[in-house]
Amino acid sequence: MPLADTRFLGRRRALAARLAGQRIDDMLVTNLIHVRYLAGFSGSNAALRVSKDLTAAIATDGRYTTQIAAEVPDIDATITRDCAKDLLSQVPEGHRVGFEADYLSVAEFERLRDACPAGVSLVPVRGVIEEIRLIKDEVELAGLTEAAQLTVQAIDGLVASGELAAGRTEREVAADLEFRMRTLGAERTSFDTIVASGPNSAMPHYSAGERVLVDGDLVTIDFGMHRRGFNSDMTRTFVVGHATDFAAEIYDVVLRAQLAGIKAARPGTPLLDVDAACRDIINAAGYGEYFVHSTGHGVGLEVHEGPSASTSGTGDLEPGMTLTIEPGIYVPGKGGVRIEDTLVITTGAPRVITEWEKELRVV
Amino acid sequence: MPLADTRFLGRRRALAARLAGQRIDDMLVTNLIHVRYLAGFSGSNAALRVSKDLTAAIATDGRYTTQIAAEVPDIDATITRDCAKDLLSQVPEGHRVGFEADYLSVAEFERLRDACPAGVSLVPVRGVIEEIRLIKDEVELAGLTEAAQLTVQAIDGLVASGELAAGRTEREVAADLEFRMRTLGAERTSFDTIVASGPNSAMPHYSAGERVLVDGDLVTIDFGMHRRGFNSDMTRTFVVGHATDFAAEIYDVVLRAQLAGIKAARPGTPLLDVDAACRDIINAAGYGEYFVHSTGHGVGLEVHEGPSASTSGTGDLEPGMTLTIEPGIYVPGKGGVRIEDTLVITTGAPRVITEWEKELRVV
Repeated sequence: MPLADTRFLGRRRALAARLAGQRIDDMLVTNLIHVRYLAGFSGSNAALRVSKDLTAAIATDGRYTTQIAAEVPDIDATITRDCAKDLLSQVPEGHRVGFEADYLSVAEFERLRDACPAGVSLVPVRGVIEEIRLIKDEVELAGLTEAAQLTVQAIDGLVASGELAAGRTEREVAADLEFRMRTLGAERTSFDTIVASGPNSAMPHYSAGERVLVDGDLVTIDFGMHRRGFNSDMTRTFVVGHATDFAAEIYDVVLRAQLAGIKAARPGTPLLDVDAACRDIINAAGYGEYFVHSTGHGVGLEVHEGPSASTSGTGDLEPGMTLTIEPGIYVPGKGGVRIEDTLVITTGAPRVITEWEKELRVV
Repeated sequence: MPLADTRFLGRRRALAARLAGQRIDDMLVTNLIHVRYLAGFSGSNAALRVSKDLTAAIATDGRYTTQIAAEVPDIDATITRDCAKDLLSQVPEGHRVGFEADYLSVAEFERLRDACPAGVSLVPVRGVIEEIRLIKDEVELAGLTEAAQLTVQAIDGLVASGELAAGRTEREVAADLEFRMRTLGAERTSFDTIVASGPNSAMPHYSAGERVLVDGDLVTIDFGMHRRGFNSDMTRTFVVGHATDFAAEIYDVVLRAQLAGIKAARPGTPLLDVDAACRDIINAAGYGEYFVHSTGHGVGLEVHEGPSASTSGTGDLEPGMTLTIEPGIYVPGKGGVRIEDTLVITTGAPRVITEWEKELRVV
């Protein structure tokens, strides 16, 4: 059996083991990211059933007959127009079937409930697959590292080309960067690229508009790619022409905070403490009120997933988790700085997979 | 009151009128596209309540305090971490509150149900806002037309540049086209760009890969942009170097089918008949088994929305609807052709907003 199958089977085994505690006989997986995670199928319509005896069934529609046979050689596929309902109809009487309560709509749930075979009950399940996804395996880490390294190549190429400079619009810079990511192998961006210049840099959730970069601007670029199911996420802030005293000051604070966050990202460390490692430095510098978001999040099949490093974070870091460290300072009307890397937590110091220069750079 | 507010108020009035029949006192809108449609707010977290007396309330989180005041001047906004729950808590005893059963997850529904004030009941509502969205107003048509015209400019520029040619990979062509759309004003693509060459053109849902374009290929390019909330969607098929007899034959059939579909797209025409207008020509040419999808769909705030022109389509066309006409022939192993325009249905002949050349073009 090829390596991939063993990997997916291992994930399905982990799922079945966790569901045993809830007396679930079969789990009906409808979130497509979870279908991909548990079975390897990447099409846009599917459902998967994983049973407690580790048998599995998968369904998709006629567009994907060839693809599902290639991607999922180890599970018999049903070709149907109504994937979840079809898989549900095969469940034996008396079974308790788990469904993904965080993703299934009320209307879809009611439709499935009405189609349930006699004696079969639907049981809401939440967070179980997400919990398994927290710890990445070697194949996932390789995919995430590749996406991250191509993302670094893209920003490196952009800066080296001189295309990040006064006179260009935010939108032009974003288009250049996205083009570089696309030609390096991205299937799409992992989120709308942020190129936030001058006063716009004070808005952490800005995207990219028509503003022209001018001398003295701070420019925050937050970007990432989606490739082969995996996402990347990184941020760098530059100055255009020259660094004002304000820019140099807040950049220094954010960089020190970010390095402290990376240093804190060790296995066994509470996520609260990772957040605090960044936040304490920004607070001590008097900018605490301008750090208005959390410190970081996991990156994987989704660009934002668990764990969460924030003031309300729970749990500890473990080897195999990913985590962004992305403190920022945003002073309304003046500008902002954010520096973000994606880390892989190891048994020792974290591995920074978006490794690239972080000293304040004038463009 | 500015024009925009009147427009949104008119939509909320249409919603309230339709809900009266279901004895709904307040509609809790949680689908963000619908919040934008009914109130004009474009942020990534919000909920809206529209009551039968046409009062409304909107909620978002602290990131959007400034934005919501600017975008929604006519509705008082609540800044909160829990938008839907907050709006629900303000509902008077005895009210029946509609919720969007097609979008609200089971878990979120249960959370809201548990938080319901005494005597307030939650009632599933489906398809009502979607039905109002079917008929576009002047502002929507202007936005859709602008996005479509910029999309045409992008493909025109790509072909004129010579960048669509033998020797280039599908991915490079997609990257070039996306770069053109982005610099023309796209915020993102409206879906993953399809550049399907040679045998790949026989797969209607292919994306764009590493295959190099070679002489004799059919190349189907299906693409669109998202700009200011609106989407565009068009497809053209080209031949590389020269047209094989096979390519010329199926291109001719698809083009005749597409022109017949456009001709049929008049108000009062059943959507079934629009589909049949295309399908009959492809059937008559002996390629019926290779036209494996429906003829078209609406385009608006979503790139795929109602109405649907298919063999199971229901209802008639009405002025103000949008519709793609996109017949195709896909012969496995040999290649395929699809030609797609987006139309606006008027009182007379439809307006083709993706107007651009359709004769078989050699690149």
